[in-house]
Amino acid sequence: MATDRQLKLGAFMRPVSIHTGAWRYPGAWPDANFNFKHLKHLAQTLEAAKFDAFFMADHLALLNMPREALKRSHTATSFEPFTLLSALSQVTERIGLVATASTSFDEPFHVARRFASLDHLSEGRAGWNIVTTANPDAALNFGLVQHLDHAQRYARAREFYEVVTGLWDSWADDAFVRDVQTGVYFDPGRLHTLAHEGPLLSVRGPLHIARPPQGWPVIVQAGASEPGRQLAAETAEVVFAASSTLEEGQAFYADVKGRMPALGRDPEHLKILPGAFVVVGDTLEEARSIRARLDALVHEQSAFASLSVALGVDASRFDPDGYLPEIPDTNDSKSARARVLALADREQLTVRQLAQRLGGYSGLAFVGTAQSIADDMQLWLESHGSDGFNIMFPWLPGGLEAFTGQVVPELQRRGLFRREYEGRTLREHLGLPRPANRFFA
Amino acid sequence: MATDRQLKLGAFMRPVSIHTGAWRYPGAWPDANFNFKHLKHLAQTLEAAKFDAFFMADHLALLNMPREALKRSHTATSFEPFTLLSALSQVTERIGLVATASTSFDEPFHVARRFASLDHLSEGRAGWNIVTTANPDAALNFGLVQHLDHAQRYARAREFYEVVTGLWDSWADDAFVRDVQTGVYFDPGRLHTLAHEGPLLSVRGPLHIARPPQGWPVIVQAGASEPGRQLAAETAEVVFAASSTLEEGQAFYADVKGRMPALGRDPEHLKILPGAFVVVGDTLEEARSIRARLDALVHEQSAFASLSVALGVDASRFDPDGYLPEIPDTNDSKSARARVLALADREQLTVRQLAQRLGGYSGLAFVGTAQSIADDMQLWLESHGSDGFNIMFPWLPGGLEAFTGQVVPELQRRGLFRREYEGRTLREHLGLPRPANRFFA
Repeated sequence: MATDRQLKLGAFMRPVSIHTGAWRYPGAWPDANFNFKHLKHLAQTLEAAKFDAFFMADHLALLNMPREALKRSHTATSFEPFTLLSALSQVTERIGLVATASTSFDEPFHVARRFASLDHLSEGRAGWNIVTTANPDAALNFGLVQHLDHAQRYARAREFYEVVTGLWDSWADDAFVRDVQTGVYFDPGRLHTLAHEGPLLSVRGPLHIARPPQGWPVIVQAGASEPGRQLAAETAEVVFAASSTLEEGQAFYADVKGRMPALGRDPEHLKILPGAFVVVGDTLEEARSIRARLDALVHEQSAFASLSVALGVDASRFDPDGYLPEIPDTNDSKSARARVLALADREQLTVRQLAQRLGGYSGLAFVGTAQSIADDMQLWLESHGSDGFNIMFPWLPGGLEAFTGQVVPELQRRGLFRREYEGRTLREHLGLPRPANRFFA
Repeated sequence: MATDRQLKLGAFMRPVSIHTGAWRYPGAWPDANFNFKHLKHLAQTLEAAKFDAFFMADHLALLNMPREALKRSHTATSFEPFTLLSALSQVTERIGLVATASTSFDEPFHVARRFASLDHLSEGRAGWNIVTTANPDAALNFGLVQHLDHAQRYARAREFYEVVTGLWDSWADDAFVRDVQTGVYFDPGRLHTLAHEGPLLSVRGPLHIARPPQGWPVIVQAGASEPGRQLAAETAEVVFAASSTLEEGQAFYADVKGRMPALGRDPEHLKILPGAFVVVGDTLEEARSIRARLDALVHEQSAFASLSVALGVDASRFDPDGYLPEIPDTNDSKSARARVLALADREQLTVRQLAQRLGGYSGLAFVGTAQSIADDMQLWLESHGSDGFNIMFPWLPGGLEAFTGQVVPELQRRGLFRREYEGRTLREHLGLPRPANRFFA
């Protein structure tokens, strides 16, 4: 099946990588959490490879795991996203900068203002990853004993989005006339006071910052639940999907894009980018051995805790060097368990290997050569499983450099990825229109 | 009176200057609100002159004035402070970066995290200007119809400070061991969960970011009221004072520093820096004419509105080219009126000139030659009126460049200001100790 579409590529970043064993990999940077020089190198390397965006994951609490497992995780801490991405905006020129911001534990006025400011500082490269924050520990950091339930979180997210985008439209693009002779700095007729009074939020406005260069920063979402899919179809311009097989990807792609025409939206104006963990080797065997080596660096304490959660039984009582025994059904999630059993069977993993896979990263992965990885990505693109990927690198900097140095050139050779940025803004990279101002022509 | 003390100098910045006529001054940058290149030039020029800090003012709403006056003001809008200062952290190396953050309309967890992140990104150059936000319009942007009263705002500010500094101490400085062999990333015994449950705030913690390089970012305050002075004596390391005469400055200095020993604090660990509007000329006459020209650029609409507020009467009915007539007493603030009458008398200003002074900037000002300005600053320093100043520039970039190019060298020649930075962090510039961690030796 031929296509003239190209892949869109985001880099889904935690400072020391997504994989919990990554900081121990030979050549890794264990201190990248608080070493900006490392992050600068990574962002510049991604930009040289013409990535669409640097996408910063975030949490609003220490990860919700026992201290004895947590102490082994480099993901415990890192820079705050807005300060980090604003700093990165000055050491890069083209790559998009996507920050995660929660609609449950922040104020729409602050969120609108910070994204507008980041968009000005980066000259049109900001994106907002809207999250509703499921971690109940986060609520305790904001004076809330009761976490909002799922439906409440989505209702607030929807209204929050309306307020933020309305605040971005406070000023017409031509509001600031700066007429030195007459002394008029802006045209008050080109300033709109939102005066939002909704069921959950009350925000007067106007925002005291000019409309962002992109009109609105790019709207990114990750929800896979029913309300998450609907919110994405209504509002998202990028979806960070969690599909773990091509079939799942195709079903998700068809579902979310299929909702858009009835909502008056062009399905081309939403890019679906599943997260993909990519391990590159000169041969398939080398790639597999890199992954095995990385998984082996996940401490057994974290590994077995993850496996026990997935199976709903205490996995530490199994022989770690044997295969998984028959396990009686429980009331816990059957789909999670089925996925684990299928994985163990498919890759013939021992109990220890399975546990370390789950403690490291067990979602969609492309493990192979630049050729085989490009084949996989091309198949997803051409068979409508995705519009591209949010790449997760196994370790930093080497795993990232293997991708930019080997996979990107292969994608470019096939015409599947750009050789130069087409425009200056993140919207231009992604082929997204600039939103009209809802209050001003 | 001889001294071996040196002045501390902050630059109190709004992107286009404090003065409302500044954007119309010949050679000014009217678009600096959203033109980062201009701000980069200003910060780098201040750093080359060895300024202690770049201090970013902030508001959480459009300024509270009628649209017809507001439309003439460049101060209406600008970048958000954290995004701006993080961007500036990458184009400067030594100058301190002070951000304004409100204790009334933000969450201590967010504020603690952002300042810690800015301190890491800048390698120890962050400062927190604690404001309680008096503008009632701000409350309306955060879903609050009733603004907190003065006492409530200060009670919240005090508790907010306790929570933020407690969160900064979540991790011992040596908590992150990153032992690749054993797989231990941090020592859980060196991590403290704050679990704050106070009258106004409930915040569990811990903060998920390493302790800031400075221990705590430098604490800055500006309150001049009784609770403001007490909060400063208890917690501040820099006070942005509003003294408009040397006598006022000396009284404020003696009062606030005098409270500190009883609180167990060394008065040397608080630097009192009044705001000072500085206009430099080759002669006194030239400096005065620059100021007059600048004041004349304040539109009469804004100017007369300001004068009417200060006098408590409608000033538009006076002859603008005459002197102020006798005005009957009202119940409005007598001290504000007395200050205005004294100013008109001292400088023999017409009603229009007086109005334009008030609509521009009418606080403490040093208007003269590099010599006379250095004399004034030396007098304040040596007679315990201040430890330095937060300089406000009449227009940008020229008014700033006149200060760094003419006044700073004169201060250096007299031994009153550094020729090179003594250290790397803002605390080191200011001679402030690094706070001990309250939970860990």
